[in-house]
Amino acid sequence: VLPDLTLRYGESASFLHFRFGPTPGTFFPDSQFPRAGLNQFLAQSIPQFGDDQQTIVNGLIALLERIGPVILVGHSQTGPIALLAATQSANVKAVIAYESIGFFFPAGAVPTPPPLWNGTQFTASANILAAMPLPPADFQKLTKIPIQLIYGDHIPATPVPVYGFDEWRVLVAVAQEFVTAVNAQGGKASFLSLPKAGLFGNTHFAFSDLNNVQVADLLSGFLHAQGLDR
Amino acid sequence: VLPDLTLRYGESASFLHFRFGPTPGTFFPDSQFPRAGLNQFLAQSIPQFGDDQQTIVNGLIALLERIGPVILVGHSQTGPIALLAATQSANVKAVIAYESIGFFFPAGAVPTPPPLWNGTQFTASANILAAMPLPPADFQKLTKIPIQLIYGDHIPATPVPVYGFDEWRVLVAVAQEFVTAVNAQGGKASFLSLPKAGLFGNTHFAFSDLNNVQVADLLSGFLHAQGLDR
Repeated sequence: VLPDLTLRYGESASFLHFRFGPTPGTFFPDSQFPRAGLNQFLAQSIPQFGDDQQTIVNGLIALLERIGPVILVGHSQTGPIALLAATQSANVKAVIAYESIGFFFPAGAVPTPPPLWNGTQFTASANILAAMPLPPADFQKLTKIPIQLIYGDHIPATPVPVYGFDEWRVLVAVAQEFVTAVNAQGGKASFLSLPKAGLFGNTHFAFSDLNNVQVADLLSGFLHAQGLDR
Repeated sequence: VLPDLTLRYGESASFLHFRFGPTPGTFFPDSQFPRAGLNQFLAQSIPQFGDDQQTIVNGLIALLERIGPVILVGHSQTGPIALLAATQSANVKAVIAYESIGFFFPAGAVPTPPPLWNGTQFTASANILAAMPLPPADFQKLTKIPIQLIYGDHIPATPVPVYGFDEWRVLVAVAQEFVTAVNAQGGKASFLSLPKAGLFGNTHFAFSDLNNVQVADLLSGFLHAQGLDR
């Protein structure tokens, strides 16, 4: 038996886009779509970059309720998901994020990220911006746990006219603003530049790069310093 | 042995975006990316909606050179791919397209599609528009083969403020303009509305809807009428 996936991720849009019915979940009376197969059909959907983060967070939190406290290690677009989960579950005891691409700030105090070289703003999707608002009480929760943000090598310090590089300059700037904002409220956030730590040549995938044992050693060191490796 | 996928689909962008090197295919000298695994890594890529159509057409044409003449049956975003292939390979003997989402017109005579209800233009992606230009000599090749465009039910005749429905109104209008343009140059294109043929309730997936035998019967009839079912 497949779970009822109806209306999660892009299914609401698909239901209309593929003309199954007039509103999501309601078929046209004469629809020729094999209704018993709807869940199976929708199970083929792939959540797209930036699709409903809260749905993913809900699933993660439900898992944590079964397996207990964890240290979340995020990567890229899962960085903001890990941070969001930490604001909604006491089971998130720390967040380590490799090259996260979105950060939260108290509503009303969301910084404007530096523009890309061409004057536009970075957006990973309609739902993931470099800097996003959270209710201040939720943001406060991010000050209660250790957070480490890690970025690899070859990230430009000044604007370069290549989107794939320049986006990282912007994201690193916002990551550093996030660390400052969390710590200004008494938090325990830190920013780790791998090349500044003596590890060179790391891509977006530090954990699977050739020097991943050294990358892991840095993680072990962080966990030890935070008393999280017991 | 994996094929060399480097630089196809989104790989060029990925190569930069993930900071493997300064230009696609060239690693940073100190890159920690496990280079021998590049093809395996890139093989995880999924061509996105609208990614380089010509690459897909090239693959299709290479296949036809091995298997010989075919009748291409396209669906949705593969409609324009089938039409494009027909302009580039004598092995395409007919094109049948279910709910195609993009059409070609002679450069200089590309119609402006009717706007969506909100005044904007339909775009499936940066690379797929409802109406796209072709060199006139290429367009001429579309007049030499039978083409049938098929659309299902519940497509509005007048603007409705639901993107998932209104896009089909626009696409049907352009499909009909395409048929007119092809036939004006002596072509053999036709437009088939399933509800006008007495089949009701068909979704975007006529070939897997409950009445798909009736849908297939219409296809058989078309192929027979064109002398293509020998």
